[in-house]
Amino acid sequence: MTKERPGLIMAGETAEQPAVLRRVLDRGAAAAQEVAGRIAARDFRFVLLTARGTSDNAALYAKYLLEVRLGKPCGLTSMSTFTAYGARPDLRDVLAVTVSQSGGSPDLVASTEAARAAGAVTLAVTNNPDSPLAAVAEYHLDILAGPERALPATKTYTASLLTLYLFVEGLRGGDGSAARELPELAGQILERGAEVARLAARYRFAERMVLTSRGYGYPTAKEGALKLMETSYIPALAYSGADLLHGPLAMVDNIFPVIAIVPEGKGGKALSPVLERLRGRGADLVVVGSEAEVARATDGFVLPTEGVAEEVQPVLEILPLQLLAHEVTVARGQNPDAPRALAKVTRTR
Amino acid sequence: MTKERPGLIMAGETAEQPAVLRRVLDRGAAAAQEVAGRIAARDFRFVLLTARGTSDNAALYAKYLLEVRLGKPCGLTSMSTFTAYGARPDLRDVLAVTVSQSGGSPDLVASTEAARAAGAVTLAVTNNPDSPLAAVAEYHLDILAGPERALPATKTYTASLLTLYLFVEGLRGGDGSAARELPELAGQILERGAEVARLAARYRFAERMVLTSRGYGYPTAKEGALKLMETSYIPALAYSGADLLHGPLAMVDNIFPVIAIVPEGKGGKALSPVLERLRGRGADLVVVGSEAEVARATDGFVLPTEGVAEEVQPVLEILPLQLLAHEVTVARGQNPDAPRALAKVTRTR
Repeated sequence: MTKERPGLIMAGETAEQPAVLRRVLDRGAAAAQEVAGRIAARDFRFVLLTARGTSDNAALYAKYLLEVRLGKPCGLTSMSTFTAYGARPDLRDVLAVTVSQSGGSPDLVASTEAARAAGAVTLAVTNNPDSPLAAVAEYHLDILAGPERALPATKTYTASLLTLYLFVEGLRGGDGSAARELPELAGQILERGAEVARLAARYRFAERMVLTSRGYGYPTAKEGALKLMETSYIPALAYSGADLLHGPLAMVDNIFPVIAIVPEGKGGKALSPVLERLRGRGADLVVVGSEAEVARATDGFVLPTEGVAEEVQPVLEILPLQLLAHEVTVARGQNPDAPRALAKVTRTR
Repeated sequence: MTKERPGLIMAGETAEQPAVLRRVLDRGAAAAQEVAGRIAARDFRFVLLTARGTSDNAALYAKYLLEVRLGKPCGLTSMSTFTAYGARPDLRDVLAVTVSQSGGSPDLVASTEAARAAGAVTLAVTNNPDSPLAAVAEYHLDILAGPERALPATKTYTASLLTLYLFVEGLRGGDGSAARELPELAGQILERGAEVARLAARYRFAERMVLTSRGYGYPTAKEGALKLMETSYIPALAYSGADLLHGPLAMVDNIFPVIAIVPEGKGGKALSPVLERLRGRGADLVVVGSEAEVARATDGFVLPTEGVAEEVQPVLEILPLQLLAHEVTVARGQNPDAPRALAKVTRTR
């Protein structure tokens, strides 16, 4: 690999993830625990999550954690209600969490300010403690990923997931021990680039794809699709397995490849009737999941998730998809480090 | 047009919409007002909306109404948290609204039952007062659309939007008068099939599309994309304008057609920097919106929305997109009435 090879920055940042995850466990866990303790004392009853792009997928992961593990109803913010329409809902008893790698997008800053003024407890989760977003929120958690230079977010995504997991564990009085093996397992996955390169070959000429999952795996399907789209420009649609049956399944046939993320646990079980329908239609089905599920599919990537708690598996599931996006993009002669038309800090208002 | 022409059922149901909207105003408004009065008296503080497919887009529309017009924080339910993971969040002070054309999907019935048991005030919005969903919810609103036989939902979508609008108006003590002109305006739009047929020609060989909007128009972008996908099988991606700038813009170039729904009002204004970027990239941009916006685009469909309140425009915006989905599908030699692989009542669990 020479310096000239396109995608070197993204590849380097992807490879950093085991170290970043270890840093979050070593240095971020205590902060997450402490902030969680102070926020839990505020007796919030409802959670609003606000983010865009990759961070929005991290926020969706947090929504599952908060609903399933903490029993708090959650919503993802439609930001324009604040920024375009000037809505000022009553946010007493609401915890408003804003997730942003840069902490710099003006609309996120404005909506966090508005939420705080409307009575919400506000928490910013960013990769930059000196950012405007960190400044306007009452609480802040640093995801400790270090500078990210490639346009497609990789390490900031998994660092956000892990930080949010540790925060929710803190809220519910858990110790977060389910996350302990993640750096080691992430390292094992990232060593298997050759397997991903083999899978990438089947997408070199793909003109469209569908990614699907359920439950905790659904944010992975969305983030995998975003990663593939923003690097390779292949239109990649993400659906929860149940939604796929409500319409888009009509599109799926043997020229429309499907990638299914099959968590080991309840989400994977809920996905199995969908996988059966896809197999029945002769879909080209690549599974990211257990050995048994991969064996029943067209092809796949086996995740070392046996015995790993389902709620932390998303930190691992995305890794082969990051590698895949990189491989497919390089194979197509494009540069994953700098997709056309994108800026690292997107200044939406 | 002979009986043999494919898509006759969808075309007929699309054409019924002015009459259906009039029926909702004449016969549904009083019920919406009465149910709203009883629910308002329950002093709910948060709203959870649950739906799938087309109804999920109607639920998203209701989310904007509830946040902007009523000032209540809202969330869209991740249903698997109830059905796959058995989450039992504390839903006191929560209004749980479930939207379903058939009222028959077991997961919607189960999640509504669970929400009611968890302390929520439950409301079902369906096209079937005798459905299991209507039975398990504390309150029910009938969208009065009459039997829908084509698989792609058309009249049940606009009837749901209008019913939800009248319900939220009832909650806030409004009279819903902004909706009065909708049947007449819908009729005017549906007479312009020839204009849509001209637009449809540009998508006959399209292999992918992007639909975008902001604010109240965003549910229209999502529903338009779903309609196009489930009938024509063209992968159609829907993004809020802000999200489009956070990644997927990289895909958009002059071989990737974009349809922008530009509401007259704050949502349209918030979309204008996105339209500027798209024009700057030479995108093939078709606008559904005002005459001025259409004039600046590659092509478009002018909506008669001057002087119409922005919050009811979605009832009109979707109509040319329903016609477009039908036209494109017939032009491609497929049958919009019965997309392959879909059933009218999707039994997800």
